[in-house]
Amino acid sequence: MIDYRLTLHHETIPSTRNRMEEAFGRLVREREEGIAGYYNLPVDSTLVIDEVKARAASIPEQWGCETIVVVGIGGSSLGAKALDQILRPAHPEAKEILFLENPDPLELHAKFKTIDKGKTLFIVISKSGGTIETTSIFKALIARFALDLEGADRHRVLTVTDKGSILHSFAQEYGLDCYFIPANVGGRFSVLSAVGIVPLTLAGYDTGKILEGGREMVDAFFRREADHLLEKGAFLAENWEQYRINVLFAYGSYFEDFTKWYVQLWGESLGKIDLSGNSVGLTPAGHIGSVDQHSFLQLIIEGPRDKTVTFLQVEDFGLDIEIPKISLKHIEKNDYINGHSFGELLNAECDATREAVSGVGVPTDLIRIDRLSKRNLGELILYYELLTSIVGAMLGINTYDQPGVELGKKILVKKFQNKDR
Amino acid sequence: MIDYRLTLHHETIPSTRNRMEEAFGRLVREREEGIAGYYNLPVDSTLVIDEVKARAASIPEQWGCETIVVVGIGGSSLGAKALDQILRPAHPEAKEILFLENPDPLELHAKFKTIDKGKTLFIVISKSGGTIETTSIFKALIARFALDLEGADRHRVLTVTDKGSILHSFAQEYGLDCYFIPANVGGRFSVLSAVGIVPLTLAGYDTGKILEGGREMVDAFFRREADHLLEKGAFLAENWEQYRINVLFAYGSYFEDFTKWYVQLWGESLGKIDLSGNSVGLTPAGHIGSVDQHSFLQLIIEGPRDKTVTFLQVEDFGLDIEIPKISLKHIEKNDYINGHSFGELLNAECDATREAVSGVGVPTDLIRIDRLSKRNLGELILYYELLTSIVGAMLGINTYDQPGVELGKKILVKKFQNKDR
Repeated sequence: MIDYRLTLHHETIPSTRNRMEEAFGRLVREREEGIAGYYNLPVDSTLVIDEVKARAASIPEQWGCETIVVVGIGGSSLGAKALDQILRPAHPEAKEILFLENPDPLELHAKFKTIDKGKTLFIVISKSGGTIETTSIFKALIARFALDLEGADRHRVLTVTDKGSILHSFAQEYGLDCYFIPANVGGRFSVLSAVGIVPLTLAGYDTGKILEGGREMVDAFFRREADHLLEKGAFLAENWEQYRINVLFAYGSYFEDFTKWYVQLWGESLGKIDLSGNSVGLTPAGHIGSVDQHSFLQLIIEGPRDKTVTFLQVEDFGLDIEIPKISLKHIEKNDYINGHSFGELLNAECDATREAVSGVGVPTDLIRIDRLSKRNLGELILYYELLTSIVGAMLGINTYDQPGVELGKKILVKKFQNKDR
Repeated sequence: MIDYRLTLHHETIPSTRNRMEEAFGRLVREREEGIAGYYNLPVDSTLVIDEVKARAASIPEQWGCETIVVVGIGGSSLGAKALDQILRPAHPEAKEILFLENPDPLELHAKFKTIDKGKTLFIVISKSGGTIETTSIFKALIARFALDLEGADRHRVLTVTDKGSILHSFAQEYGLDCYFIPANVGGRFSVLSAVGIVPLTLAGYDTGKILEGGREMVDAFFRREADHLLEKGAFLAENWEQYRINVLFAYGSYFEDFTKWYVQLWGESLGKIDLSGNSVGLTPAGHIGSVDQHSFLQLIIEGPRDKTVTFLQVEDFGLDIEIPKISLKHIEKNDYINGHSFGELLNAECDATREAVSGVGVPTDLIRIDRLSKRNLGELILYYELLTSIVGAMLGINTYDQPGVELGKKILVKKFQNKDR
């Protein structure tokens, strides 16, 4: 169960009500006309789970191996990485997933050393099929581990990409397994497609439950049982020029990758040129409590009033540690915490910080998760995806493209072409 | 060697020139009058290195052990963690440093499991001495590992704190070793004090070289050989209401903790109420290339013009991997990269992205490091500390306090006092 406490200061005037209805209408159309496909993933991806399980049973030696290496960057890795990080403590039996994302030679060197080919399944993920970082790392893996794609290692490598992409053609050429990302699902909205579902299912997570949580959120929203999303979206969209930054302040160390997933989703979807040619958009910032109380909090409290803060809290971590009833001489002032648990401390810090932040007039809201279940995580993912679509609709932008990143890619290719001349 | 390419669009008019001179004067006064003590750390901390080495030689069993556990949060951990992360790939012989920061029960549970008391030295770090997270984790360690502070384990625990703090009194009570943070050095400016120098020296890093790089930067600045710092500061301070966010886009996976150190330094120092009672300040955002080209870049390019971007680049990673001359069928368009290295790819991505970002009119600058040497890292730390002081001086704020975080702490104590009634 997740409790959404919307405390953003907001008065719903008629124009806001209209804006909410318009945005709702746009999301309905996006779903019906297939403009955005992520709405259907919680239902459609159950087929992917079935396929993956059946295939894994047929080639248990390769697909049942100890380690899964995911080669992918951005939308091809962030979502699965986020879910794996949060779920792992409660699932020590899950297979290790090693993500190869950044073309950083030091990181690749360290990670390559840990790979034992005979115990590894390689999953190459790229929506376009031609992501330069991903194909380069894949080439390095082929060379380093003498991957024989035409023979012995054919079942050790599988691909996830768009149907008809160059990576799909490559997979067909060698007879490699290939799972598809629906064409109308962008990378940053793809965690519940094959992109996330294939590696997480193979690692042993019950991904059906994640989809279930996602489906409940989608259904609730379209049944108008989650209008708090429209209200939050309206506040953020109507006030974006004042509140330019949305901070996701997540209390729990293992939300680190989740905040990165949120930053991509939000930043790449909402930083756009609108229909009138104006640059608009909200800047996402991910922070972890209580660590960042010792870092970013001062700026929130006393700095410019250009931020909204969403607090994310977990009621029950499942596993807790008591703070012993030990009195340290001269530090007795801290004995008030003795006998309480670290989970209690973390949550009380979240509450106290939220009170302090709200108290100075910074708009805040709270997402309170009862426990880190797969169902709740599925809901949370759809919550953020729907919120992104809503804000995009209200800002009058195309939420699903990313034209701004193309120029750099072109310059990159030219740099090497000039070098080689 | 570090090359600072200041390409922020800026015209130095007389008022800016005055502002630069005033800021320089304030920093001179801060150093002379001891208002901020970090300027002297590169010289003064050489004594700490000598002391630590002498002491370690006298109790080799405990201080020469395999693992160092640092208990500390915020300014007590971020700096050492950042340096350890960057230096480690080239120093596989360095002892493991395990940082216990966040009071997250799942993370603590996982990390506690890896600790073997007989092979561990515990360093408890808190400037005030009473940080609730730190003392609570310390209590849990005492209970879990049956630390006998009055007997066998006295030399397994050492402390770093302000002289006269309650942690200092505690250390005296048990005869524990205690290193001091100068009173005029705030947590976020303390990495080159005992806070960072003690654990890094004990881990086996040649910390003298880090200090050397720091000293050269301080000397160059006060000799007026690094006026690019004043120019950059002037641009950021004069335009902060337009360019509210400074993005540090670091190309290299192992800069992740460094960007967190920067976020604390910048956010906690520069988010303030100024002399006229206005909330001012620049928001720091840390991003990693090339990963975040697939995430945050779209927002920089097409989103609101409220950001400046500092690119951080490493010329030579010391260790590189060639991208093999393999042509993947149907993906031949990516063959332009074949035979080049991952380091080259990463750096070309940085250059291409910087060109694209500058091309649309976003102010950028570049910090180009020739290699990840300890000397360069010391210089980089002082570069950011000096820049922070300069911007703070120009904004007319107190760069070194953090009054905004006190309210939350008070609310926290009350929550538990009310609970226990």
